[in-house]
Amino acid sequence: MVTTGGLFELVQDDLARVELALSETAQPEHPLLGPMLSTILPGSGKRLRPAVALLVGNLGQYQPEPMLHMATGVELLHTASLVHDDVVDESELRRGARTLFTRVGNALAVLVGDYLFAQSAARCVATGNVRVIGLFAQTLSSMCQGQIEEASRGNNPHLSVTKDEYIQTIWGKTASEGSAILAGLREPQVEAMRRYGDRVGLAFQIVDDVLDFVGDETHLGKDVGSDLRQGTITLPVIYLRDSLSDGQIRAAFEEYDVERLVELVRESTAIDRAYAEASRLLEEARAALREAPAGEPRDALESLTRYVLERRA
Amino acid sequence: MVTTGGLFELVQDDLARVELALSETAQPEHPLLGPMLSTILPGSGKRLRPAVALLVGNLGQYQPEPMLHMATGVELLHTASLVHDDVVDESELRRGARTLFTRVGNALAVLVGDYLFAQSAARCVATGNVRVIGLFAQTLSSMCQGQIEEASRGNNPHLSVTKDEYIQTIWGKTASEGSAILAGLREPQVEAMRRYGDRVGLAFQIVDDVLDFVGDETHLGKDVGSDLRQGTITLPVIYLRDSLSDGQIRAAFEEYDVERLVELVRESTAIDRAYAEASRLLEEARAALREAPAGEPRDALESLTRYVLERRA
Repeated sequence: MVTTGGLFELVQDDLARVELALSETAQPEHPLLGPMLSTILPGSGKRLRPAVALLVGNLGQYQPEPMLHMATGVELLHTASLVHDDVVDESELRRGARTLFTRVGNALAVLVGDYLFAQSAARCVATGNVRVIGLFAQTLSSMCQGQIEEASRGNNPHLSVTKDEYIQTIWGKTASEGSAILAGLREPQVEAMRRYGDRVGLAFQIVDDVLDFVGDETHLGKDVGSDLRQGTITLPVIYLRDSLSDGQIRAAFEEYDVERLVELVRESTAIDRAYAEASRLLEEARAALREAPAGEPRDALESLTRYVLERRA
Repeated sequence: MVTTGGLFELVQDDLARVELALSETAQPEHPLLGPMLSTILPGSGKRLRPAVALLVGNLGQYQPEPMLHMATGVELLHTASLVHDDVVDESELRRGARTLFTRVGNALAVLVGDYLFAQSAARCVATGNVRVIGLFAQTLSSMCQGQIEEASRGNNPHLSVTKDEYIQTIWGKTASEGSAILAGLREPQVEAMRRYGDRVGLAFQIVDDVLDFVGDETHLGKDVGSDLRQGTITLPVIYLRDSLSDGQIRAAFEEYDVERLVELVRESTAIDRAYAEASRLLEEARAALREAPAGEPRDALESLTRYVLERRA
């Protein structure tokens, strides 16, 4: 099994500090916020976002304090966007667990999301770098515009781009570009790292979507087909539609039998095509990486592109 | 009739630029956002918030560009918070007009609020002053904590502080302190201006609440008693409760006859007491102002404290 263990060795001490910072964010003096935050912030996930940020920060002049804030801020921004995303979609489950929206209701979930945006903003302010702070504001703005476009269209299974796709990939660009700026890389290198982060973020999401069709349920902590069950149309389904006749598409989606649709995806070339697309994006990421200074951090970022494709959970 | 005209003469050119900046924010390239924003951003209100920011900015070394961003950012932050406030309260009307929440629904209103937060963040980043940016992040965080506290308590008419009170006054502190920093005032003066803004913001809100009981409907654009009708308990009502026996309070609120409650407030000393409280706060604001450099801007800020108390609409 591919694990992230070795990959992040170089930054494991700082990753532990990020984890601590997230735990501290989940323990505000405010008596009501703490219990809500502690269910969504600490100990969740692989911390891929902070890890990418910290590794990119090691490509140049590593700045321990600003980098800690940057890595924490990226994770907080992502978490905030997921909380509001679940409000917008009225999602009951995310990765098998009940969403904050389901547990505390619309009003509080909106406010907790706002609070996390504020904490994310405070972290990026703490980097002390106005350009990096501007990057966060711009990311938030792009995320909102993407979501507004989607929400205005409503739940139309014939969409070609999905909202989650958009939201969940933008962190890559932000984390990489922001860290490259903080590390004092030259402008073409900053641009290259932005490209690296963009491609890795997108590829990560595509593999995530594929794993929803082929994944081992034990490892993934969610049911196969869960995206479809929530009405989320991901890349494999888009490819499936390409390979069906109009009549077959209509029949399959009108019925909306999730198990049947999963079977159709698995039988088609959709999975292979999705992996090929992820592979192509990761090749672009590696090409971008060649413009960064050579050394251990760059090697780790390159290994990461292979992990993204090979992971099974 | 008291008007704001003369008060803001000193900054009227820059106020026009703020208005333009707000109109531009309401015309994003995004085809769906524009129509939604254009109903809530341009041409609404007295622009008291930007005016206070600009006047304070004139107390020291006036910085035209950063001040334009600061004044616009404060107004955007306020608008964003109102949009989410209406979502949280499921409010149908605000000042007589249908809320964005009512017109476009929960999901889009959440996202438009997020977008406005992002635009506000972009404006404060554009000031180029990390301390001022940090102030915005801190303001957003305080606003959220205050709202979360309220939302967790639910609609309890025996509360002693109301949510709207909290959200709608915090702009004063932020606008004044941020502008004082940008204008390069000395630290005790920055602190004094923070106090000035805090007291003016709070007094403005109290007078607003009083006008909901005594206001001329033509001027105010809303029905008398509209706060009560929406279940919002403001200072006059809190004072009314002080002057009734427990039995009378229970009877009045169990029935919840808005016209009768308005009558009770008008007959009691509640209005006088509320004006006395506003007057006391504005006296504190003037005391704080004495620490600022003398001159036309300070005179205008002093006149503003009198306008706040005397306005009738």
